[in-house]
Amino acid sequence: MEKITISIDAMGGDNGPSVTVPAAFRLLARYPYIKLILVGNQVILNAKIAAMQNTKFQDRIVVQHASEEVLMDELPSKSLRNKKDSSMRVAINLVKDGTAQACVSAGNTGALMATARFVLKTLPGIDRPAITTPFPTVVLNKNTHVLDLGANVDSDANYLCQFAVMGSVLASVIDNINRPKVALLNIGSEENKGNEQIKKAAHILAENKNINYVGFVEGDDIFKGTVDVIVCDGFIGNIMLKSIEGVLKLVAFYAKRNMLRNIITKLMALLALPMLKRLHRDIDPGKYNGATLIGLQGVVIKSHGSANVAAFYHALVKAVVEAEKQVPQRIRDELTKVLQDSKLT
Amino acid sequence: MEKITISIDAMGGDNGPSVTVPAAFRLLARYPYIKLILVGNQVILNAKIAAMQNTKFQDRIVVQHASEEVLMDELPSKSLRNKKDSSMRVAINLVKDGTAQACVSAGNTGALMATARFVLKTLPGIDRPAITTPFPTVVLNKNTHVLDLGANVDSDANYLCQFAVMGSVLASVIDNINRPKVALLNIGSEENKGNEQIKKAAHILAENKNINYVGFVEGDDIFKGTVDVIVCDGFIGNIMLKSIEGVLKLVAFYAKRNMLRNIITKLMALLALPMLKRLHRDIDPGKYNGATLIGLQGVVIKSHGSANVAAFYHALVKAVVEAEKQVPQRIRDELTKVLQDSKLT
Repeated sequence: MEKITISIDAMGGDNGPSVTVPAAFRLLARYPYIKLILVGNQVILNAKIAAMQNTKFQDRIVVQHASEEVLMDELPSKSLRNKKDSSMRVAINLVKDGTAQACVSAGNTGALMATARFVLKTLPGIDRPAITTPFPTVVLNKNTHVLDLGANVDSDANYLCQFAVMGSVLASVIDNINRPKVALLNIGSEENKGNEQIKKAAHILAENKNINYVGFVEGDDIFKGTVDVIVCDGFIGNIMLKSIEGVLKLVAFYAKRNMLRNIITKLMALLALPMLKRLHRDIDPGKYNGATLIGLQGVVIKSHGSANVAAFYHALVKAVVEAEKQVPQRIRDELTKVLQDSKLT
Repeated sequence: MEKITISIDAMGGDNGPSVTVPAAFRLLARYPYIKLILVGNQVILNAKIAAMQNTKFQDRIVVQHASEEVLMDELPSKSLRNKKDSSMRVAINLVKDGTAQACVSAGNTGALMATARFVLKTLPGIDRPAITTPFPTVVLNKNTHVLDLGANVDSDANYLCQFAVMGSVLASVIDNINRPKVALLNIGSEENKGNEQIKKAAHILAENKNINYVGFVEGDDIFKGTVDVIVCDGFIGNIMLKSIEGVLKLVAFYAKRNMLRNIITKLMALLALPMLKRLHRDIDPGKYNGATLIGLQGVVIKSHGSANVAAFYHALVKAVVEAEKQVPQRIRDELTKVLQDSKLT
């Protein structure tokens, strides 16, 4: 198998190298054909690597120095303009120049999107990249890819259709689905429901034979496993994702409170809390699996800012899979077909 | 205390009189000063009442015949035009003519909104009614009122501001809060975030001294209990509410699956499943508490279509509280003040 190299913004996220370095070692242990480039402050990173006390992987892990860091609350435009030697920027540059086949960062989402878009550019036919992640469903081993989760606000009908194409390719490549079912997120399944852009997008998608468009779905359908791809504007996608994150915290809060009511439930709590934690990990889509910045000329994976080692490791695995399956190239090929259907753009 | 009369669309919802009649009796038992009018097919309703075998409340419960029913999937415009003797319409008429001080229905949401708006009219200064319900939070006994949950798509800045005024009055009247904290739902808390209408609404609200506007919040803030009112467009509100409903079903699914893994967790499951059910009831905001159609010249409460007796009872209690507190009149008074601030309309 051909060697794949992943570049890591090792300084990104709330926890920086304390999380990124151990996660990198976990990946090296489980994926023997992968090489990693850790980008960031070389003194800190070399110390962190030495502290792992594991020289087994030394020929597969490299540190690339970068003198700056993008802060979590920094304005994307500022970091793009002023921090040309940030760990984030350098990690993306490595994808641009072909040294790495994918890049992973737990840093500032807006800055990552702006920088990736500036450095890598979007694929031909894609005006705006989107953020996507698979959501778990009540059908075992069945995920639904949802996009956009927050890269764009006010997506018009054409952007929604571009998201539909990208999501369809992603589901077909990642989950080996032939003609994935693609739906638009709406407030009802009837044709007369929704706002103007969604009605227009429905009309365009229904006419496009390259997309298996199945109609409108509602918020609760995200978890039913009945469709493969759900498309929405990033404003809605982001609010939806975060409200799910919020309600899961509320579930944990209520569950703990109810458990502490009496001695029997207190004993149960001892057994149930790890289960609850596991539940949270299984379900919270944004937090544990990493998200793909899709529509770019290169693989860029965003890990949650508060990712722990397990979560960042999952983001690294996602990068490996998408690099191996050459997702951007596959989207480019599909777009060439779709673009012949003049209705899309 | 002055007697309050509530009219009930007794045929509405997935379960009709099987749910509405027992819930009505529960209310009569607990609220000795309330009178109820059950609206619907008198043969069915009288039989259902007789089957309750309880004549104690016979002077406080009346059946008002209505010959038609609005179907759950009927187009609102059709039921409004063609079913002038529906149980829903007659129940709302009773509020209009002052016979009842509030109306409750578990029927078709769109039809209820359209009919209530047509019969009762909106309050002066309110262009569009909204749907709202209190969401539970991680702060005990602290709710956050969220609106609009689906009455309007494409709410412009002025509509969002009207929702803010209504939500503020509701929180102050229902939860006895002085100058409730009002926020706009957005994809970040920074001023430059979001779409045009939300930025414009933020600007208008910040200048309005009658509203305690505190800025933008994100999806997970809904459950943090840090603000009293959260305002959003109905398209987003509906998708958010339904996605929460969906993820709670997913939580129940995963919890059951994890519990059935081995003998210890199977035993736990016996104890934990009722707790999980309770959790679901405590948390699912749309399903168990009923929602207020706010902005109308009268109290109209929507119960979930799939409401059971306990849920429909909760919707009835909400109607009693809002009728007692004269929520529409309070909103009207507040609007008179706010309308002097020319920026709002």
